[in-house]
Amino acid sequence: MNDILYRLADILEQRKTADPQNSYVASLYAAGLDKILKKVGEEATETVIAAKNAQSEQLLYEMADLWFHSLVLLAHQGLHPRDLLQELDRRFGESGLVEKAQRQLTKGSTHE
Amino acid sequence: MNDILYRLADILEQRKTADPQNSYVASLYAAGLDKILKKVGEEATETVIAAKNAQSEQLLYEMADLWFHSLVLLAHQGLHPRDLLQELDRRFGESGLVEKAQRQLTKGSTHE
Amino acid sequence: MNDILYRLADILEQRKTADPQNSYVASLYAAGLDKILKKVGEEATETVIAAKNAQSEQLLYEMADLWFHSLVLLAHQGLHPRDLLQELDRRFGESGLVEKAQRQLTKGSTHE
Amino acid sequence: MNDILYRLADILEQRKTADPQNSYVASLYAAGLDKILKKVGEEATETVIAAKNAQSEQLLYEMADLWFHSLVLLAHQGLHPRDLLQELDRRFGESGLVEKAQRQLTKGSTHE
Repeated sequence: MNDILYRLADILEQRKTADPQNSYVASLYAAGLDKILKKVGEEATETVIAAKNAQSEQLLYEMADLWFHSLVLLAHQGLHPRDLLQELDRRFGESGLVEKAQRQLTKGSTHE
Repeated sequence: MNDILYRLADILEQRKTADPQNSYVASLYAAGLDKILKKVGEEATETVIAAKNAQSEQLLYEMADLWFHSLVLLAHQGLHPRDLLQELDRRFGESGLVEKAQRQLTKGSTHE
Repeated sequence: MNDILYRLADILEQRKTADPQNSYVASLYAAGLDKILKKVGEEATETVIAAKNAQSEQLLYEMADLWFHSLVLLAHQGLHPRDLLQELDRRFGESGLVEKAQRQLTKGSTHE
Repeated sequence: MNDILYRLADILEQRKTADPQNSYVASLYAAGLDKILKKVGEEATETVIAAKNAQSEQLLYEMADLWFHSLVLLAHQGLHPRDLLQELDRRFGESGLVEKAQRQLTKGSTHE
């Protein structure tokens, strides 16, 4: 299950040569960066709404949309989920999380 | 690298019993759902801005923040990244992506 | 020009009895709160993108969409732009703005 | 009450020569466009959350924040609320609203 992100990345790469008429992802590439970013913003709002509705199934659905369009954005920018996971690991892995916590606390409890 | 999401989930689970004074994640749990959702929305906007700035490093940084707070949201709601990856696999895996593409195309080119 | 918000509020009120088949606003009311909120989030993202594109015309277009859907949200919740302008006046009018500035500065330069 | 937007615009213009140490608005100008856009996105998310909480007072508070930072964005870009109200009038005034409704309906019920 854990490798779905890499399998998805492969598919998203293949879609770069697909016909926008036949592929949703190819149609996003063809529409360009702004269109992809609109989807990211849209799905983030829908994730927030789903969480407020306290419906786990809806939340997973919308968050999957958010992550999916994040992956499309990465692919469009020539990046791979590996780069993102490395960044997560660097900053939020066991040691990184501690560092983050301390940085936040240094910024004070007024941090919004 | 691919298992960072599960390792992070373990850490986020442990933070549920941590002191909000010592842990950024515990302080988010203590602040509650709305605070976590504000962070998700905030990081989505910062992801959009970073992409428009065409700076890969900044984009990975902000998207890592977005995914990290997504994982905090999942943990807060009693969900696991496994649930999210399953949803991604179901809808956007090899066959799912095709289905999605066709659904979108059925909805017509006016789909925004 | 300054009274456009009140004139719009009148129209939005009238649309509460319109046929969703004939009126975009009535179709938003019929779809419900979540649909209206999705539009608010969507238009906010498009405003951010337009500003990054440094195109004044596009920015005004998207911000008009953002404010318009804000007004639809107010109407749906039984509120009037007068209530919003009063809140703006209370907090950001001549004296309020000073107060706000001082509150922010008290929170320190780390305020994000 | 209706002229609060113009009075605010005057104040925001004056803040362009204020000391960022003494003025929240001047500190936003000094931080630059991306900082202002982050605030717009942030306040939009908080507006959505407030609406889901069904608390009118909180909704007015957050929407006032959203509109306030929209006005800061306009000022930063050399625009005036007059420009925005004209755009609202052009597109959503009595006749414009009808046109919009028809455009939307032409796009079909699949319009998201």
